[in-house]
Amino acid sequence: MTQSLALTYLEEHYDRFQGDLIDLLRIPSISNDPAYKNEMDKAANWLANKLRSMGINNVEILPTAGHSVVYGEWLNGGASAPTVLIYGHYDVQSPEPVDDWKSKPFEPVIRDENLYARGASDMKGQTLAAVNAVEAIVKSENLPINIKFLIEGEEEIGSKHLNDFLIAHREKLACDFSLNTDAGGMPDAETPSICYSLRGGVGFKLEIYGPSQDIHSGEYGGVIQNPIHVLSKLIADLHDEHGHVTLPGFYDKVRKIDEEEHAELSKLPFDEAFLLKHSGAPALWGEPEFIPAERIGARPTLEVVLFQAGQPKTAIPAKAVAGFSFRLVPDQDPNEVHRQFRQYLETNLPPTVTWDLQFFIGNPAVITNRKSPEVIAMKNALQIIFGKEPIFQRSGGGIGAVLMFKEILGVDSVLTGFSLYDDNFHGPNEKLHLPTWKKGMAALVHFFHNLVN
Amino acid sequence: MTQSLALTYLEEHYDRFQGDLIDLLRIPSISNDPAYKNEMDKAANWLANKLRSMGINNVEILPTAGHSVVYGEWLNGGASAPTVLIYGHYDVQSPEPVDDWKSKPFEPVIRDENLYARGASDMKGQTLAAVNAVEAIVKSENLPINIKFLIEGEEEIGSKHLNDFLIAHREKLACDFSLNTDAGGMPDAETPSICYSLRGGVGFKLEIYGPSQDIHSGEYGGVIQNPIHVLSKLIADLHDEHGHVTLPGFYDKVRKIDEEEHAELSKLPFDEAFLLKHSGAPALWGEPEFIPAERIGARPTLEVVLFQAGQPKTAIPAKAVAGFSFRLVPDQDPNEVHRQFRQYLETNLPPTVTWDLQFFIGNPAVITNRKSPEVIAMKNALQIIFGKEPIFQRSGGGIGAVLMFKEILGVDSVLTGFSLYDDNFHGPNEKLHLPTWKKGMAALVHFFHNLVN
Repeated sequence: MTQSLALTYLEEHYDRFQGDLIDLLRIPSISNDPAYKNEMDKAANWLANKLRSMGINNVEILPTAGHSVVYGEWLNGGASAPTVLIYGHYDVQSPEPVDDWKSKPFEPVIRDENLYARGASDMKGQTLAAVNAVEAIVKSENLPINIKFLIEGEEEIGSKHLNDFLIAHREKLACDFSLNTDAGGMPDAETPSICYSLRGGVGFKLEIYGPSQDIHSGEYGGVIQNPIHVLSKLIADLHDEHGHVTLPGFYDKVRKIDEEEHAELSKLPFDEAFLLKHSGAPALWGEPEFIPAERIGARPTLEVVLFQAGQPKTAIPAKAVAGFSFRLVPDQDPNEVHRQFRQYLETNLPPTVTWDLQFFIGNPAVITNRKSPEVIAMKNALQIIFGKEPIFQRSGGGIGAVLMFKEILGVDSVLTGFSLYDDNFHGPNEKLHLPTWKKGMAALVHFFHNLVN
Repeated sequence: MTQSLALTYLEEHYDRFQGDLIDLLRIPSISNDPAYKNEMDKAANWLANKLRSMGINNVEILPTAGHSVVYGEWLNGGASAPTVLIYGHYDVQSPEPVDDWKSKPFEPVIRDENLYARGASDMKGQTLAAVNAVEAIVKSENLPINIKFLIEGEEEIGSKHLNDFLIAHREKLACDFSLNTDAGGMPDAETPSICYSLRGGVGFKLEIYGPSQDIHSGEYGGVIQNPIHVLSKLIADLHDEHGHVTLPGFYDKVRKIDEEEHAELSKLPFDEAFLLKHSGAPALWGEPEFIPAERIGARPTLEVVLFQAGQPKTAIPAKAVAGFSFRLVPDQDPNEVHRQFRQYLETNLPPTVTWDLQFFIGNPAVITNRKSPEVIAMKNALQIIFGKEPIFQRSGGGIGAVLMFKEILGVDSVLTGFSLYDDNFHGPNEKLHLPTWKKGMAALVHFFHNLVN
């Protein structure tokens, strides 16, 4: 096995890799809060130094209108060798609510076999899995392959400036396909997974204004409508009793799931017991005519992620604010959903309030080819290391880069990752299962070898 | 006019009275936040010193299980003279949202003829109006009247310990009736008002729990119900499209408004234009079969005063929290409403969530006699100073003390006050209209004289 040198390298350097990850996790690179701008720069520098230290060439921190992109390349494979663009992101979600963390979000702690920290799983750990696999190869052998790294700092804020960045650097980023380890979600530590579909999304902030300021709930209760009541009714009316979104036209362009795919999705382990265990919720919910794996991956959804109004005192508040997160599937158009939602508000909000809707950038969903040579290479690599065929799943989340790479660079992405369903990305107590992470690096070494064998 | 000495005293000491009020307003005596305990004590001491300085006897700061009560008495009128128990409170509501204030809530500022500060109108200004009127009388003449002061520190948190306090000090507090200047709400500076009815109230905090922690809205959207959606639907369903509360049994014991009272309430100036102007809301709302003055004063209401859930990130939150404020009218029973609400939750909340309901102490509504000698004394006093008969109104708010005085001390309260409808009590930019405040003191001097003439 030609990969044995690289696999041995991984084994010998594992302790250092783990220490490096802990160093990176200590940097609170929260992209949605300008207060952390210095920390963002620190994380980008850390990664650039890491790439330089392992022999990657032309490492640069390239500016965007927002947070920078870390770039680097290793083109020793030569012109006839395949070129893989490895995607990663160094930004993380806010750790709020911090009180719900058992240990501090930016002070990584290992408990049992898990490393707890914000970003451990999403995706500093996943990014370094790919970086470390490349280090093992370039330091121990001469594999005829070319690698480019693109590690952005805005994935958690919708990859706002990535589109412009890709257009500006299209030639530099030329490649055969992209490897994206941000699409994990293994159902358990024994079952590897490849993702072939990502939901798109649009986000909105809606503000509802009632009285010109907070007013006494006794003196005005009964004559002035409460913005909390108006917003609550709006939210309540947006779903019917069977979990369908009532927004007119919302499902018009949703691509049907065919019999073959339904049969495949039915075999996945995401059943009621699995989802209840991992969410901690008391009961499932949702469209009864679809199985859970379809509801997560192949059906669009509408979630209110934020509702803020009022004070702990007896007043009718002047305003109520909600954050909406729609998840979209093929072939929905985010701009059309935006129009539908705005139209719905215009039609349904009562004259007792005024309102303002802010639209955040939206992405359509993506479906990739399950049978491409690079996907087969990944399938075989995962099978060798985990001793089990990977499941093919649709992810309920989205990764803006995958769509932009397709549209601007013209390439598909191989979507995998070594996060587990209970890794709590975006929630408190995010963790990374270290034995799975280690296996993931070895699988990636096999993957690169499979590409050229 | 025997009251001319006291009225002259008021005039000569007005500037000092205004300065005293500003001093008291500088103390952030916020009763609902334990961080302000020292400030509460400071305000109580300030008032005790004020009473002592004007010759009130036996001034004491009497402890309760919560914030203390300031007591003092002036019994020089003798055993055959009427005894008036003057009620006040030195605590104030939280000033949140502080950003909406034009000047700082605890740095009083006079703009035009208004004094801006938290508590200016509700009710440090109203309390000192009564205190100053008494000072003018006791310092300038020998009116055969007895005065007792009870100034509590927990009105804004439901007068939680006043009941126990009244039971413990029942004999000390013996009186013929109470004067309560916390029931203001003059429609404008020219129109005095007497209040003859207060709504009661109950408060609840409801927490709805879904997943065991915040979970990714992509990975779980479509299979796990969002606690924000559940709480929104609960709130939406609690009113029908005509503004009626849907809680079964809620209206069963509501006392009907008779023809005579309906005719009187119809003459009050609280019409649509008035309420829109003072609330700043774009349109009125509420039960169409009742006029606004009835909806505020004679009909019960349900307001959600707080809705807190989620974060500005794409996660389904683990919980959603709401604060409920019900306003009650005769002859509703707060405990029965509590049972009805709990029963409603048990019946209507879905199995996708669990929940916890916290009940805050409730008070029934109060109606007082519009024709008692002391009310007539107040009516005549207001007419002399304002040159206009007072309106008789039902207040939409509640004052726990009024009910407790009736139940424990066996006395009625004369309810008036010199706050204007646009004083923004409980909201930002609370203010006191100083010329009206000054007239109010003079009217109170007349009132005390009318009691013995």
